[in-house]
Amino acid sequence: MTSEIISVGTELLLGTIINTDAAALGERLAALGISCYRQTVVGDNEERLTEALNDALKRSELIFLSGGLGPTEDDLTKETVAKVMGLRLVEDEGSRHAIDEFFKKRGRKPTDNNWKQALIPEGAIVIENPEGTAPGIIVEKDGHRLILMPGPPNEFVPMLDNKVTPYLKSISDSVIYSQNVKICGVGESAVEAAITDMIDNQDNPTIATYAKTGEVHIRVTAKAGDEKAAKKLVKPVTKELKRRFGVYVYATEDDITLEQSIIDLLKVNRLTVTTAESCTGGLVASRLISVPGASDTYKCGFVTYSNKSKRKFLGVRGSTLDKYGAVSAKTAAAMAKGAAAAAKSDIAVSVTGIAGPDGGTDKKPVGLVYIGCYVNGKCEVKEYKFSGNRNKVRESATAAALTLLRRSVLEDFSRKEFKDLAE
Amino acid sequence: MTSEIISVGTELLLGTIINTDAAALGERLAALGISCYRQTVVGDNEERLTEALNDALKRSELIFLSGGLGPTEDDLTKETVAKVMGLRLVEDEGSRHAIDEFFKKRGRKPTDNNWKQALIPEGAIVIENPEGTAPGIIVEKDGHRLILMPGPPNEFVPMLDNKVTPYLKSISDSVIYSQNVKICGVGESAVEAAITDMIDNQDNPTIATYAKTGEVHIRVTAKAGDEKAAKKLVKPVTKELKRRFGVYVYATEDDITLEQSIIDLLKVNRLTVTTAESCTGGLVASRLISVPGASDTYKCGFVTYSNKSKRKFLGVRGSTLDKYGAVSAKTAAAMAKGAAAAAKSDIAVSVTGIAGPDGGTDKKPVGLVYIGCYVNGKCEVKEYKFSGNRNKVRESATAAALTLLRRSVLEDFSRKEFKDLAE
Repeated sequence: MTSEIISVGTELLLGTIINTDAAALGERLAALGISCYRQTVVGDNEERLTEALNDALKRSELIFLSGGLGPTEDDLTKETVAKVMGLRLVEDEGSRHAIDEFFKKRGRKPTDNNWKQALIPEGAIVIENPEGTAPGIIVEKDGHRLILMPGPPNEFVPMLDNKVTPYLKSISDSVIYSQNVKICGVGESAVEAAITDMIDNQDNPTIATYAKTGEVHIRVTAKAGDEKAAKKLVKPVTKELKRRFGVYVYATEDDITLEQSIIDLLKVNRLTVTTAESCTGGLVASRLISVPGASDTYKCGFVTYSNKSKRKFLGVRGSTLDKYGAVSAKTAAAMAKGAAAAAKSDIAVSVTGIAGPDGGTDKKPVGLVYIGCYVNGKCEVKEYKFSGNRNKVRESATAAALTLLRRSVLEDFSRKEFKDLAE
Repeated sequence: MTSEIISVGTELLLGTIINTDAAALGERLAALGISCYRQTVVGDNEERLTEALNDALKRSELIFLSGGLGPTEDDLTKETVAKVMGLRLVEDEGSRHAIDEFFKKRGRKPTDNNWKQALIPEGAIVIENPEGTAPGIIVEKDGHRLILMPGPPNEFVPMLDNKVTPYLKSISDSVIYSQNVKICGVGESAVEAAITDMIDNQDNPTIATYAKTGEVHIRVTAKAGDEKAAKKLVKPVTKELKRRFGVYVYATEDDITLEQSIIDLLKVNRLTVTTAESCTGGLVASRLISVPGASDTYKCGFVTYSNKSKRKFLGVRGSTLDKYGAVSAKTAAAMAKGAAAAAKSDIAVSVTGIAGPDGGTDKKPVGLVYIGCYVNGKCEVKEYKFSGNRNKVRESATAAALTLLRRSVLEDFSRKEFKDLAE
């Protein structure tokens, strides 16, 4: 099955909005094993949308359209699709009712325009949209399937995952199953080097690596007649990946982030953690607190940007700062130790570095960061040299701090051994 | 001049990468007054790129291509463009030298593949790429202009801004000048309501609003024969906007963020600031510290997620927490006052709220946030009800905290009066 995506919206052309819908859809299609060879963006313009649609019909069996389903005059995706496919628009009772309910619930009244959203091409399948007033629409005609979805990502993504993906599975003669193996603490090239043999010999399942700041995700995807058979193909491969990367694998579930896995790990071990941050200035704390329910393990943290505050709140000695400097392994260690004591927490992670653009020297260049982790009376400190601008350095340092925190907890409380894998 | 964008890269189709290049380019083209009616994404595939390029040549005078200029066999944008336009590839001496230098500087050796990047279509203009090894290329032939740029955003955007934009200005018979009026503390609909008359009567300059979390930017764009004339058209409009929104305008410069404007304001007044954060957990601190040189005004901050830490580090009374709860105006005020005392700073901003998904009640629902700002012995507290998921609530609260901080400093130290404009 060959597909393509047409995104409709003048804001996309003007760059006011970034086309995250197309990326989300592309990712799901890849996971489903549906080839997608083209994405097109056109504005809210009937002539140009008609041209794009006619071109797409020549090439692809499955065409996704996002955007242009709103209540205003500008929104003309549905009208254009109906015209091109030779279908009348008729009112859908269920959609009219849903729009009515949507407004009632919010204590507002629909305008005349809103009822336009209840019109659908005759014979089309209506996809409910609990997040908004524009229903999705599936038109099946002349060997083509056109799937129309609303543009706002908070409506598009749930509809894609909850309604459209099951539909695509139902029309597919094979089933795709994929699983992510998420790794932290190993660089992308080291990950690739460690699985060259697996990548070279891949066929079904396929293996693909995706690099994120401080992380690498390996996605294993299999195609088979049914889900059970597909899972059976994936299982030995993820098992082998887990064997090769061992404790560096922090999760295999799609919805578990690195920070979530760390909070879970701390909860299981009934441990509390605190943070002492200089150049990252709250980013490490903020990622931990982004996890719902983090309050069981994270009670408080410190942003100690000045030397004075490192002394006052973390008890770092003036002599340590004078002799080694604020950006040094000794200071990172003293920050972590002091933070654990001040917060009365089991564990503390500290970050001190030079994020730039100024402040670098030959000996201590921009990008130099020390990260400390204090656990059980011991403190481990690691030195990093990150590249990129101020924000890139801060983000890389944040990911590295989370990774060291995870490693320290595993080594100390789960007695996991970390092999040597290049970071 | 009509243009379109072709982005080349299988990762874009697979959703591994979001197409931020097209958005960045679309934004610049809109600012330059160059119409862009279509964006296309194709994979690293000669046949499909050839088809997309031939289609584009029928429609547009100016065609931008991003991606596919790398050193591997997959990268074939340049080769395909040369073939379609009937041009030979020849080695460019300058590019060969630049590649040599790039690797020397990094202490690495170029591979044979890398020299491929020094080949350019005969007669083309070479655009230097100080950020990478793939030069940009401009092909001018048969009334068309094709502009090839490398795909990685950290190479694409600097090349676009530093090299391609001046080129586009040089081939344009008119000049576009635009200025942003950046507003915080006024909601998008209130901004639009306040300038309906200006939007309805716009022609040249045009006026467009862009909403960001907690901010609205109004872009005023004029087209004229030369820059002086364009600026003359923009000036009275931005002046009128500044008159209408007064102190709510935090900047008119493109590179000044809200946090930068606040750090500048604090520096001018020789003030120091601290933060005491509960649900935002370091996000406010992190935005302030993202500004280079923030260390003059920001010395330290507190993440006080638990009640105990609010008492211990900020001196919030147990009775206040018991009587009013952690999420209350009284607690927000006590947090701000206590943080200023603990940090010995002139100003303190505090945030306490319910970010969800759990923890909400009928009286205190998810999204309820109190923000306090302590200045000069007084403390102002504001109540907010934000919508959206946990991260959206936290981001909205962070923007509101920065906005209240700015407002408090202006009222107290610059004696600026804030009129009533709906937030």
